[in-house]
Amino acid sequence: MKNILIIGAGLSSTSLIQYLLKHSEKNNWKITVGDMSLESAQKKINNHPNGTALRFNLKDLEQRAEEISTADIVVSMVPASMHIIVAKECLRHRKHMLTPSYVSSEMMELDEEAKEKGLCFLNELGVDPGLDHMSAMKIIDQIKERGGKIKTFKSFCGGLVAPDCDNNPWNYKFSWNPRNVVVAGQGTAQFKENNHYKYIPYHKLFSTLTKTQITGYGDFEVYPNRDSLQYCELYGLNNIPTIMRGTMRRPGYSEAWNVLVQLGCTDDTYIMKDSHKLTYLDYLLSFLPDSEKSTEENLADFTHIDVNSLIMTKLKWLGLFSDEVVALKNATPAMILQKILEQKWALEPTDRDLLVMQHLFDFEINGERKRITSSMTYEGTDREHTAMSYTVGTPLAIATKLLAKDKIHLKGVHIPTLPELYKPILTELENLGIKFIEEETVL
Amino acid sequence: MKNILIIGAGLSSTSLIQYLLKHSEKNNWKITVGDMSLESAQKKINNHPNGTALRFNLKDLEQRAEEISTADIVVSMVPASMHIIVAKECLRHRKHMLTPSYVSSEMMELDEEAKEKGLCFLNELGVDPGLDHMSAMKIIDQIKERGGKIKTFKSFCGGLVAPDCDNNPWNYKFSWNPRNVVVAGQGTAQFKENNHYKYIPYHKLFSTLTKTQITGYGDFEVYPNRDSLQYCELYGLNNIPTIMRGTMRRPGYSEAWNVLVQLGCTDDTYIMKDSHKLTYLDYLLSFLPDSEKSTEENLADFTHIDVNSLIMTKLKWLGLFSDEVVALKNATPAMILQKILEQKWALEPTDRDLLVMQHLFDFEINGERKRITSSMTYEGTDREHTAMSYTVGTPLAIATKLLAKDKIHLKGVHIPTLPELYKPILTELENLGIKFIEEETVL
Repeated sequence: MKNILIIGAGLSSTSLIQYLLKHSEKNNWKITVGDMSLESAQKKINNHPNGTALRFNLKDLEQRAEEISTADIVVSMVPASMHIIVAKECLRHRKHMLTPSYVSSEMMELDEEAKEKGLCFLNELGVDPGLDHMSAMKIIDQIKERGGKIKTFKSFCGGLVAPDCDNNPWNYKFSWNPRNVVVAGQGTAQFKENNHYKYIPYHKLFSTLTKTQITGYGDFEVYPNRDSLQYCELYGLNNIPTIMRGTMRRPGYSEAWNVLVQLGCTDDTYIMKDSHKLTYLDYLLSFLPDSEKSTEENLADFTHIDVNSLIMTKLKWLGLFSDEVVALKNATPAMILQKILEQKWALEPTDRDLLVMQHLFDFEINGERKRITSSMTYEGTDREHTAMSYTVGTPLAIATKLLAKDKIHLKGVHIPTLPELYKPILTELENLGIKFIEEETVL
Repeated sequence: MKNILIIGAGLSSTSLIQYLLKHSEKNNWKITVGDMSLESAQKKINNHPNGTALRFNLKDLEQRAEEISTADIVVSMVPASMHIIVAKECLRHRKHMLTPSYVSSEMMELDEEAKEKGLCFLNELGVDPGLDHMSAMKIIDQIKERGGKIKTFKSFCGGLVAPDCDNNPWNYKFSWNPRNVVVAGQGTAQFKENNHYKYIPYHKLFSTLTKTQITGYGDFEVYPNRDSLQYCELYGLNNIPTIMRGTMRRPGYSEAWNVLVQLGCTDDTYIMKDSHKLTYLDYLLSFLPDSEKSTEENLADFTHIDVNSLIMTKLKWLGLFSDEVVALKNATPAMILQKILEQKWALEPTDRDLLVMQHLFDFEINGERKRITSSMTYEGTDREHTAMSYTVGTPLAIATKLLAKDKIHLKGVHIPTLPELYKPILTELENLGIKFIEEETVL
């Protein structure tokens, strides 16, 4: 009987734990879920006969050693910065480990020792990172096998709201960490276009847009992510002329978000004076020059938008012109904006979110230029069972199953860019409704 | 015979050392100048009978203790971050100390011990900070003595080029650290306008301009500095409705500089790929979208300027469209921009720089609203003897003289906002040609 230990019973663990419990009887697994809150762990186990819930404190050295040493496989669902603690304990007790998160440099440093000890440390097994690697590498490997030469790779992902629940002027609701949405894109976006490296500063990001469509879901716009260049090496595309990864939003989102960026509302680096006393209107005015004009006209002039535009409709709908009080002490502009947005962009209990992912590959093959488009859409069930948590948890769950059934023979620190990982995971995901539609056209 | 030790014989020490040597015979002073380079120290002493040049290494504990313990007063002209080392050694050996730099929090922590030991640690004795404090506080104290209530305080300073040497389209040359000019204003400018706190993000800074004039010198434009709010407390203006400090440039500078900011050319946070291979044009193109248009039109469209504007003239004059090679390895955008500017904005050997400073005070007195404008201009002699180094070194030199002649009775860490400091220093500066013209008008 194998013992699978899952550390962390937060929102993103739901699908993972459900899947593993479902497969536990057939495979003779014991599923142990540990969390700081025993109640959270118990809720996830839901009295399943093969499940055990624990109050688990990662900082308790004795408990950490005890639970990890008696597990066969450990799935770390703790905050990203804490995976390394779990990983080092797994090394010590010679246990395989999985995480949904980006490989940190500290994690990468464990590669050699993990290899020596015959251990497999799998990372980036969620949706982004995770599904993006798998679905892109599948096509990249196929094009290379066919003798094609990839000239352009663009990859987009977005967490949005399902069309029939999409009822606000931003066409957006939070299906994930609101803070990450507020500070998204800060820094400089780096990508490659026609063999030229391109650098887009944050204040230009939301006006540097690409458009795309997904059949059945209509139009989207895309702003570039910070980190496209590292994917050249990661995906074996070192001399590719054009590479860009981006975030998908519904058309019109970015031009309105750009106004908030231009004003400085997303700045998280300083505390606003007397922030708790400010009204939303005071907050807005603190970024605008003093003026005799109406606030709407002042804002429109300062940010070069039309006072009667849909952008203004979106901003007004957020309540930015209201006399509601911020009531947050020592808050940064970003913290205040997050509070405003959380009130307006919350999923209703029956709201269903939408996860969209799309890759575009332009390649040359036998003297022809062709394009493969690979698109995936997945809608959540309700506010508790989101597409976001399902698409994060399910690839990780499948990888855990494969590892538990000795179907993975990799040793060391890995991400799912290898066929040994992506092939079986993508096949099973398709059966579970997470399916990429691929189309090939001649350009 | 008093021994005055000056540590650091860089450009900004020239006027300081000349002044102290000049006053050394009458006052029976020994002037010791220590620098990492003996040659630099010797050059500054220039065989003066009361001067001694030393090779001085601040990191040499023995030498540090030896030289400081045998001095009566120490003037620290080392890089700002190293003043604290000098200050702690001065505490140990019970010596007075002066610096031209901002009081760091570490320096402030020495206040109590300096007081206990009867020592005077004077800071911010250059031009900005320094002259700004003195000339502003003189008027603030005068208005308060007259029973006036200050409603608006604006204070501007700029290092520019003298009108008859002002022969480039930017009307600007470097009279100080070029790097500081390239990264100037990064962060968020904070000030107060009509009782409202205002926050201007960097990408809006160079389009948030105030205009002003100085008699005999014409028009200037001003962009806000980062740190205006701290001056409320520093200058005893706690409930002032409007306070703003800013940097002076010639009209048209900021709108052209803003294009460089919008492009991301001043970003110092990432290394550009293959930076040494880029031409200036490649550098420019890496911030622009791919386009069928000419680079000029592409740039104009992307940054919302007119392709035939004076802005474009300024950008072209910098050589940004040329095929000259950057030839800087692992360079950030800011490092490359600095290299380009250093070639174009260098002072010629006979060029004279211009230092401008202006304060505006609006106040209510006996039911009237009045304004005092206080303006100072000073032109350098040549590239070696700049207004910048003269106005930095001279107030510090006067303060050193006052301390050596026991005319200052303050103990602890201070800046020249107190009459005991600013009165005698401003009086002597006036005799040396650094003179503020004050005008009072009824509004």
